[in-house]
Amino acid sequence: MAHEQHQQLIQTLHECVGACNHCYDACLKEEDVNMMAECIRLDRECADICAFLEQALMRGTPFASDLAAVCAKICEACGNECQKHDHEHCQKCAEACFKCAEACKEIA
Amino acid sequence: MAHEQHQQLIQTLHECVGACNHCYDACLKEEDVNMMAECIRLDRECADICAFLEQALMRGTPFASDLAAVCAKICEACGNECQKHDHEHCQKCAEACFKCAEACKEIA
Amino acid sequence: MAHEQHQQLIQTLHECVGACNHCYDACLKEEDVNMMAECIRLDRECADICAFLEQALMRGTPFASDLAAVCAKICEACGNECQKHDHEHCQKCAEACFKCAEACKEIA
Amino acid sequence: MAHEQHQQLIQTLHECVGACNHCYDACLKEEDVNMMAECIRLDRECADICAFLEQALMRGTPFASDLAAVCAKICEACGNECQKHDHEHCQKCAEACFKCAEACKEIA
Repeated sequence: MAHEQHQQLIQTLHECVGACNHCYDACLKEEDVNMMAECIRLDRECADICAFLEQALMRGTPFASDLAAVCAKICEACGNECQKHDHEHCQKCAEACFKCAEACKEIA
Repeated sequence: MAHEQHQQLIQTLHECVGACNHCYDACLKEEDVNMMAECIRLDRECADICAFLEQALMRGTPFASDLAAVCAKICEACGNECQKHDHEHCQKCAEACFKCAEACKEIA
Repeated sequence: MAHEQHQQLIQTLHECVGACNHCYDACLKEEDVNMMAECIRLDRECADICAFLEQALMRGTPFASDLAAVCAKICEACGNECQKHDHEHCQKCAEACFKCAEACKEIA
Repeated sequence: MAHEQHQQLIQTLHECVGACNHCYDACLKEEDVNMMAECIRLDRECADICAFLEQALMRGTPFASDLAAVCAKICEACGNECQKHDHEHCQKCAEACFKCAEACKEIA
């Protein structure tokens, strides 16, 4: 079954979705939101494409590799932005994004 | 067909999704993003539930009225926040949200 | 943090999303797809609203209880349909849906 | 503004989302659902990625061309499946999918 092949990737995506959504929420509550604007934007782009791919893999999408390629790219962009910021939520999010980008590339 | 019954509501939802996404994008580019944090948050909550309901109606969901009730509530909350801000994108978004809330209530 | 309060519910929703997407995929591959049409439809309605609520909770949505109420209703409808079918994927999906409906009701 | 540049594409995507969701709904109500299984699956894959891209464009996503490339591929696959079936909803859906694939390729 497709979703069993991809079980590890689904879990990695799920963790990335969690980290991005948490970082988005925390960025909106930071003292200096201006500085976090790009992070807020990319957190949601990344959470949404990861959540999309996660569900697509769960239902055996025929487009796994194409979706994973674009997902990897968005994860990397989000990770690059997040790692610029010292907040713990940003650092954790960067880590989750880079891990997810690597996992996506394996099937891309 | 369900989606024909709801054609006007689908259009109203679509316009609200557009206004909320545009307002979200514009808020992230404002000089004072701090002041827009709640608007950014609610714009995305609203865009996402409206887009969800829009697609659900298009495919004849059996849960139209339940989804419309929660959608109306989120539209109202977003409209209330947006109308506090003088930016044109906020004022237009508030208008789209209130119009959409009314349309949702008709089937809720 | 909102997403920590809801950690257990997020996990339950995640399992329900997985079970529904798997059941949807498996139903489309059954010998008699006609018999599974309602199951296919409800699996996707249920997966989508659960995935929506999951992400909304992760980012501290102010609408948790309203979304959880509609999610509980859709989970129940999906569980009721799935439990009519003897396929293992349907039985497992029904179980995940009922568990998720209960968890949603606790915050609704 | 990004969303104004893409206004025509957003409209084309919106029509494709509508055609795919309607075709999905109608396929599930056909007499011979077995024959429509692949169409049902691809209709939802296509509706979901088009709806995703539509919203992403509305909020000025930095990933427009990558998302459009994968969207074009999924639209084509859905159009190819739909055009095999004589049902009016399938023929109309195929048309909307091919039109949308072309529009996506222009920015991919």
